[in-house]
Amino acid sequence: MFDVISIGHVRSTLATRADAPRQADEGAPSAWLELDPAFAEAAKDLKTGDEILVLTWLDRGDRTALSVHPRGNPDAPLTGVFSTRSPDRPNPIGIHRVRIAETGSNRFRVDALEAIDGTPVIDIKPVLGGLGER
Amino acid sequence: MFDVISIGHVRSTLATRADAPRQADEGAPSAWLELDPAFAEAAKDLKTGDEILVLTWLDRGDRTALSVHPRGNPDAPLTGVFSTRSPDRPNPIGIHRVRIAETGSNRFRVDALEAIDGTPVIDIKPVLGGLGER
Repeated sequence: MFDVISIGHVRSTLATRADAPRQADEGAPSAWLELDPAFAEAAKDLKTGDEILVLTWLDRGDRTALSVHPRGNPDAPLTGVFSTRSPDRPNPIGIHRVRIAETGSNRFRVDALEAIDGTPVIDIKPVLGGLGER
Repeated sequence: MFDVISIGHVRSTLATRADAPRQADEGAPSAWLELDPAFAEAAKDLKTGDEILVLTWLDRGDRTALSVHPRGNPDAPLTGVFSTRSPDRPNPIGIHRVRIAETGSNRFRVDALEAIDGTPVIDIKPVLGGLGER
């Protein structure tokens, strides 16, 4: 068992899980990532235009679920959660590929994010380019 | 603060962090993911050929590091860890995009993985196809 810490939170117009689209490219709004000032140094090289992976802790997920009906469709066969993107899973970590649209003081606006308001952010990573760009 | 649980472990010929390539496409070997039988139901629909994201807990990472010299190169300027893939970061989560090459009993061989032997696995997700495939 390991301790994951929150590095910040999502600020979004999406208020409930029922409001949230299933994926970012299914109509998710722009949202802000508000980082804890303690992590400002870690975020200092993020800039507008960067493509990033945002990792979130989907704290409304059901951690006891091992299989689900994909996309909440009761007619879809029960599927092991490791073959789905369901937030219901043993470790409810979300991965969101987004582009930084605006930068502020310890905050970043990203183009489309399906996580709801208040969702803890746990990591940010760059999208890797090809071998030559590393 | 949230509790992350291990769902299994990496079994690899890579024994130390010094042995590990920086990314999977820089010469990483094939490796096995050995899952805890308690999560067999969650893994039941994973099959050979599937492209997956494996999330690991890089337990040798330095969680106090906020900036690093990218790729361990002392001549590279100090960079905020959220702009790097360094395992040294507040939450040392690794993301590995791999293909399942072979399936066994609660284990999966993946084609190329830069995580070292014994690294805890914390989640597995499918790589998302286009909108039409969901």
